[in-house]
Amino acid sequence: MTARLIDGKAFAAGLRERVAGVAASFASSQGRQPGLAVVLVGEHPPSAAYVRSKAKATREAGMESFEHKLLADVSQGQLMALVDELNADPAVDGILVQMPLPKHIDEQEVIQRIDPEKDVDGFHPMNAGRLSIGLEGLVPCTPLGCLMLLQHELGDLSGLDAIVVGRSNIVGKPMAQLLIQASCTVTVAHSRTKDLPAAVRRADIVVAAVGRPELIRGNWLKPGATVIDVGQERVEQADGTRKLLGDVASSEAMEVAGAITPVPGGVGPMTIACLLRNTVVAAHRRAGLPNPEGL
Amino acid sequence: MTARLIDGKAFAAGLRERVAGVAASFASSQGRQPGLAVVLVGEHPPSAAYVRSKAKATREAGMESFEHKLLADVSQGQLMALVDELNADPAVDGILVQMPLPKHIDEQEVIQRIDPEKDVDGFHPMNAGRLSIGLEGLVPCTPLGCLMLLQHELGDLSGLDAIVVGRSNIVGKPMAQLLIQASCTVTVAHSRTKDLPAAVRRADIVVAAVGRPELIRGNWLKPGATVIDVGQERVEQADGTRKLLGDVASSEAMEVAGAITPVPGGVGPMTIACLLRNTVVAAHRRAGLPNPEGL
Ligand SMILES: NC(=O)c1ccc[n+]([C@@H]2O[C@H](COP(=O)([O-])OP(=O)(O)OC[C@H]3O[C@@H](n4cnc5c(N)ncnc54)[C@H](OP(=O)(O)O)[C@@H]3O)[C@@H](O)[C@H]2O)c1
Ligand SMILES: NC(=O)c1ccc[n+]([C@@H]2O[C@H](COP(=O)([O-])OP(=O)(O)OC[C@H]3O[C@@H](n4cnc5c(N)ncnc54)[C@H](OP(=O)(O)O)[C@@H]3O)[C@@H](O)[C@H]2O)c1
Repeated sequence: MTARLIDGKAFAAGLRERVAGVAASFASSQGRQPGLAVVLVGEHPPSAAYVRSKAKATREAGMESFEHKLLADVSQGQLMALVDELNADPAVDGILVQMPLPKHIDEQEVIQRIDPEKDVDGFHPMNAGRLSIGLEGLVPCTPLGCLMLLQHELGDLSGLDAIVVGRSNIVGKPMAQLLIQASCTVTVAHSRTKDLPAAVRRADIVVAAVGRPELIRGNWLKPGATVIDVGQERVEQADGTRKLLGDVASSEAMEVAGAITPVPGGVGPMTIACLLRNTVVAAHRRAGLPNPEGL
Repeated sequence: MTARLIDGKAFAAGLRERVAGVAASFASSQGRQPGLAVVLVGEHPPSAAYVRSKAKATREAGMESFEHKLLADVSQGQLMALVDELNADPAVDGILVQMPLPKHIDEQEVIQRIDPEKDVDGFHPMNAGRLSIGLEGLVPCTPLGCLMLLQHELGDLSGLDAIVVGRSNIVGKPMAQLLIQASCTVTVAHSRTKDLPAAVRRADIVVAAVGRPELIRGNWLKPGATVIDVGQERVEQADGTRKLLGDVASSEAMEVAGAITPVPGGVGPMTIACLLRNTVVAAHRRAGLPNPEGL
């Protein structure tokens, strides 16, 4: 048996197209494009690359991109003042401060300064709480993208056994909450879990968000399981080249799983697509419009 | 084998004594007692009884109790105005609006109006989010009490397999988050769970918060498991008397579990004790004092 590949790249492209359609109607009814502000502090090259690709995707979706680059030695106060300015700016619907921030900056203080209605990363405690309680809010992009792929693949998830491996605030925990809300029976596993292979083997849905290349082996999986591999780690190969690896041993898993996201081309492209989605949703809510459909 | 009974009544009495000690030091250093305001809307007799016993316990712990009784036909605006007044009152450290509220009142709007720093029920999305993310906040009383009993019984919970049956905002979800933070491997089950007996049988820790009398049978339990029974439903017996029953078939469970909370006298008394604990903690934070120790 060979697993179906879940084409996150294609799904993300479709979502971005739908977002662009919604952004265009918003622009024509409101007289302005939805706007996303991205803040980059310092010179961290992968962060700079993320910020560039987010800005490009924002413009491609017919939204306005505001980019703010601050020096690595910016003070907490200066960064907070910029956040205040963006909070107050009516042209800005979404604010994303690229993490990680330099060590002298208190990240939580920055996150909590962002207006929750503009917090398109969904990291503000107010949005984490809304997700937990089941209120409308802004949901972290990566787990939201994983949920979309799962629902696209499986339809109604109700009653399925799911395991989330990893309990980070940006992936594992919100993922578990989304799956609980979708009426899965959800197990959250992490580095203290005693028998991870046995726990994985019981699951119809496996979401791996660990950051340990190929930790999860093919023979840990229940035959036919749907596997969402969030991990993406650049690992040096024997020949000196670097390869992007997921948290699941993919060639083994292909023989056992029912469906699996590839790395790259699975979860990765969903994150930016969901960021654009969150921005256009935030724009609608701020304008007092009903949530756009089909996103 | 007969399970140990986890004496929640005794533990709660000890906690209330420690809270009283802390409240006394607070009063002598701050020149005022910590204060808890309780708001009761309408005549719902069980709610009225809860409110009376909360007020009594508050005074017994050396704290000030402010009771507000509103008529059942109070308007949303009047209730919100009272919350605003209590938010602004420096003598009030904790605010509890007794649920359920009459149907014409929007409960979420009321909960979200309470200052999160005074939200001793821990129901505000800001506190739900802090709990989810792992920030300091105010945690719902019943699951906090369950965690205390578990840690008292088992010490470090790290690596243990826990199941939480129930996913309500006031018990199941916050309980699961507390157990994840305590490094258990946590499964959340609910009415859509396919094979609940099998899921319960794998767990070292079972927290039942379902509200279905004696749903969980003795032969569902792993021998030696620690069982926290949150359920408390008054059920009419054959002879016409009413008996308080938990979610676990207790006489069966006694033969299999390692330890179990009785109903009544287990989780029940912890809720008020944790409410007092949250009030004195809120008082300290509002006064800029470090968190009191031993609570
Ligand atoms: N767009 C995207 O595709 C996207 C977005 C975000 C993240 N990611 C990727 O997803 C992965 C996880 O990211 P993250 O930010 O969630 O990572 P993280 O904050 O480092 O969290 C990793 C989690 O995995 C758990 N863990 C570590 N070793 C384990 C083991 N041997 N067995 C079981 N659990 C283990 C940790 O447990 P403890 O809590 O016990 O330490 C922790 O909860 C990374 O590869 C990251 O690059 C991808
Ligand atoms: N101080 C205290 O001791 C205290 C405090 C609070 C509550 N309680 C008691 O705790 C119990 C639960 O309270 P709650 O407010 O959390 O109740 P709730 O809001 O009614 O939630 C009950 C949960 O149980 C789940 N459930 C219902 N039937 C089930 C079944 N057959 N199998 C598996 N799960 C099932 C429901 O699943 P769905 O989500 O799928 O519907 C729901 O998540 C009640 O007896 C209540 O009186 C005691």
